[in-house]
Amino acid sequence: MEKQNYNHLTRTFQRLSRFGHLSAIAGWDMFTYMPPKGSAARGEALAELSVLQHQILTDKKIATLLQAAAQEDLNDVERANLREMTRRYQEAVLLPESLVEEKSLVGTRCEHGWRTQRPANDWQGFATNLKEVVRVSREEARLRAEAKGKSRYDALLDLYEPGMTSAKLDVLFGDLRTWLPDLLQKVVAKQSQRSMITPVGPFATGTQRELGLEIMQLLGFDFDGGRLDVSAHPFCGGVPEDVRITTRYDENDLVSSLFGVIHETGHARYEQNLPREWLGQPVAHARSTAIHESQSLFFEMQLGRSTAFLRLLLPKIIARFGAQPAFDVQNFVALNQRVERGYIRVDADEVSYPAHVVLRYEIERALIEGDIEVEDIPALWDEKMQHWLGLSTKDNYRNGCMQDIHWTDGAFGYFPSYTLGAMYAAQLFNAAKRALPQLESDVAEGNFTPLFDWLSQNIWQHGSRFTTSQLIANATGEDLNPLYFRKHLEARYL
Amino acid sequence: MEKQNYNHLTRTFQRLSRFGHLSAIAGWDMFTYMPPKGSAARGEALAELSVLQHQILTDKKIATLLQAAAQEDLNDVERANLREMTRRYQEAVLLPESLVEEKSLVGTRCEHGWRTQRPANDWQGFATNLKEVVRVSREEARLRAEAKGKSRYDALLDLYEPGMTSAKLDVLFGDLRTWLPDLLQKVVAKQSQRSMITPVGPFATGTQRELGLEIMQLLGFDFDGGRLDVSAHPFCGGVPEDVRITTRYDENDLVSSLFGVIHETGHARYEQNLPREWLGQPVAHARSTAIHESQSLFFEMQLGRSTAFLRLLLPKIIARFGAQPAFDVQNFVALNQRVERGYIRVDADEVSYPAHVVLRYEIERALIEGDIEVEDIPALWDEKMQHWLGLSTKDNYRNGCMQDIHWTDGAFGYFPSYTLGAMYAAQLFNAAKRALPQLESDVAEGNFTPLFDWLSQNIWQHGSRFTTSQLIANATGEDLNPLYFRKHLEARYL
Ligand SMILES: [Zn+2]
Ligand SMILES: [Zn+2]
Repeated sequence: MEKQNYNHLTRTFQRLSRFGHLSAIAGWDMFTYMPPKGSAARGEALAELSVLQHQILTDKKIATLLQAAAQEDLNDVERANLREMTRRYQEAVLLPESLVEEKSLVGTRCEHGWRTQRPANDWQGFATNLKEVVRVSREEARLRAEAKGKSRYDALLDLYEPGMTSAKLDVLFGDLRTWLPDLLQKVVAKQSQRSMITPVGPFATGTQRELGLEIMQLLGFDFDGGRLDVSAHPFCGGVPEDVRITTRYDENDLVSSLFGVIHETGHARYEQNLPREWLGQPVAHARSTAIHESQSLFFEMQLGRSTAFLRLLLPKIIARFGAQPAFDVQNFVALNQRVERGYIRVDADEVSYPAHVVLRYEIERALIEGDIEVEDIPALWDEKMQHWLGLSTKDNYRNGCMQDIHWTDGAFGYFPSYTLGAMYAAQLFNAAKRALPQLESDVAEGNFTPLFDWLSQNIWQHGSRFTTSQLIANATGEDLNPLYFRKHLEARYL
Repeated sequence: MEKQNYNHLTRTFQRLSRFGHLSAIAGWDMFTYMPPKGSAARGEALAELSVLQHQILTDKKIATLLQAAAQEDLNDVERANLREMTRRYQEAVLLPESLVEEKSLVGTRCEHGWRTQRPANDWQGFATNLKEVVRVSREEARLRAEAKGKSRYDALLDLYEPGMTSAKLDVLFGDLRTWLPDLLQKVVAKQSQRSMITPVGPFATGTQRELGLEIMQLLGFDFDGGRLDVSAHPFCGGVPEDVRITTRYDENDLVSSLFGVIHETGHARYEQNLPREWLGQPVAHARSTAIHESQSLFFEMQLGRSTAFLRLLLPKIIARFGAQPAFDVQNFVALNQRVERGYIRVDADEVSYPAHVVLRYEIERALIEGDIEVEDIPALWDEKMQHWLGLSTKDNYRNGCMQDIHWTDGAFGYFPSYTLGAMYAAQLFNAAKRALPQLESDVAEGNFTPLFDWLSQNIWQHGSRFTTSQLIANATGEDLNPLYFRKHLEARYL
């Protein structure tokens, strides 16, 4: 019997994928439409499903099937699928169910508390819960590190970007350290020489939504397989067949929602163009969080804030909201390429963003390795913010170490994805430019087909077939090279 | 160990309820927000969950636990819960998994085809699929009939209204037959003597939505535990903690959407007031489809179309849409109490509605018992429509026997619930009036608290604790008595 074990595994993963579908839609609903009294029951329902998924994935038969399937006659894609199945199984099986449950429990408590503790600047209250999360995450890291033969932090990092290590990050981020503060300084000085006119609202949110939909359409979003809705924290959710992106509207700030939509559209197009014939199998998943972020930043930063794209966008804004001094072309471009040192990561421009990431990386690694404790975070945060951005966060926990949701549920190892994504995006855009000499005039004319075809052929359609290194080397001719990111920033901002 | 088996069962049913939560929300999303390309994956995900739920419910251990729990020291509510658990188990276990799967398969195919066959008036195409559904439903009915010692049709009827039989329905509907055609004749003749002014639109759908929300608020809908959205076919879905009702808007027809909202609000308030401390257990479920419908018809027909309520409603309509001749009080009341013979069940007034139900009951019973075949339906439909309503549906399948969705997925036995619900609603409203002498002036003043308190105490808070007969007898002093429905129609329309 040919591929009998492999076929058994594909059925199991298909089943897991169907449960994952329900979890994704119920999760999307939780952040978009669910009324408050649905919260407790929804949490319980999703937790029950998680336990089931963990049980199915770690069933004793799976290990035997994986071993037997490795001896079967598989083609390249099937072999890649088996590699991803194995990775998922191994990541899941090394955690006892009690730890999975405890992680979920302390994470939910910390996240729930954070929602009110952050506005109240209540570091003590937050720290109490965070200590529990750190305790459980350290235990998780210890188990993963033992099984994988890696350091504790690397064992978590590997969950988000398989193959990435802190040794590699130290090189990449060490390089940033040598030039980024200086570049930031120069750009801020340069930009301070021109005055900028801020758009004057209000901009009706209904019209903002229509504009967002128009730009999604322009960027190739498939509305037969996805939607745009509203949530407090924008995200891209759902399933590849039905991608749900969200934004939030501020009547006084037009571009923030719009660039949020462009960002999430990048995530969405990746999902909407994963290999259809493999959907439901691990090989059809997006490659990693960093590659996912590279697609959203490709859309938002590389393409979206380019002068050609901003010039294309502006008449569409004026058509809906009328002209005003801020919508002069030069001013509009400058506005959307403005660099400012600020406290908040999610509001940061692409020049200062890596500073926010590197400081989080340094702190979370030390925390997981046991070199620092939760109590040490605020002082370290303040010190690093002073160093990178010249800003003090002393006693300002709300806009300092309490601003992000990631640590509340133990997602240590995630933050580096943002800057890795920015680097991949710059490298990919550079490769696309080389492959498509007409790119700039195409963008100016609103013809994105060649660019998106290039992305589809080089990234989207491969899902998880290749490792990240292979994927990037195939697409650009070399492994991750941070020089492209530096060159991009210098070219755009100096 | 006290109640050990019973407690084990409550945990299992709690787990089933959590999976049911995900199914309910994903199902709601399917009819409200899901884009077309999500359809196939959603169907597969929901089917996978159904199989899981069936497996959990029919696990071999359940029978042993149910028997052992029956010997344990349980209080009244626990005993009622055990009764409902047993009923659910017994209904599920007598169907082989292959039949469950086949039913889902032929039902999905028939329903999917119906969506295009109905507009195309394609009876032959529809009949081909429906025959498969009937074949599977007859097999289901045979298995259920054998296990329950009932006739085949009664064994299906019992799923929707436990304890109801076709013998009882023959008495109830036989009674209707003696007076309803005559009453209908008289009312139509009487109403033909006055001319009516139809409201002139357009009525902006956004404003219709606001009005709907205002009336839901007035009727006590809890927006912290539910929502109003849009779907092609209005329904009440979600879970008791998070009730999702829907409507559809027609710019030219203001009252149809509004009374749809009032109807679904009746369903919703029942769900929102099921016993909170028992949620997740079978005893906390709504009693039956007929009792559910009694609540929606209580809101829509007994209360909503009463002159006192219509007088309360009218100024709210005028406040949003302005005055016009159709909004004269007398005309507005007449408009919302208009009786007309028509082809379509869902558009029918409360006087002609039972005719639509009785003819479907007679046909579906004969079909399940094997007395007629699918080919016989159109002629029978035409004959019965002629008899009851004087309308021919010859060659008009679209507005005749193809108009409803129920038979497409084998929901034979459901239709009687509508008229049983209307009868229960009339009986309950009569009892409420006796208990609340001030009811009419309360309604005129918009004070619904006494009425809703009465419903909550007599119906909502009991869930499935009592049988339908007990519930109705406790609430009204007698078992179902169709005289109240007749008296209600005569009082309102003659
Ligand atoms: Zn992103
Ligand atoms: Zn109803």
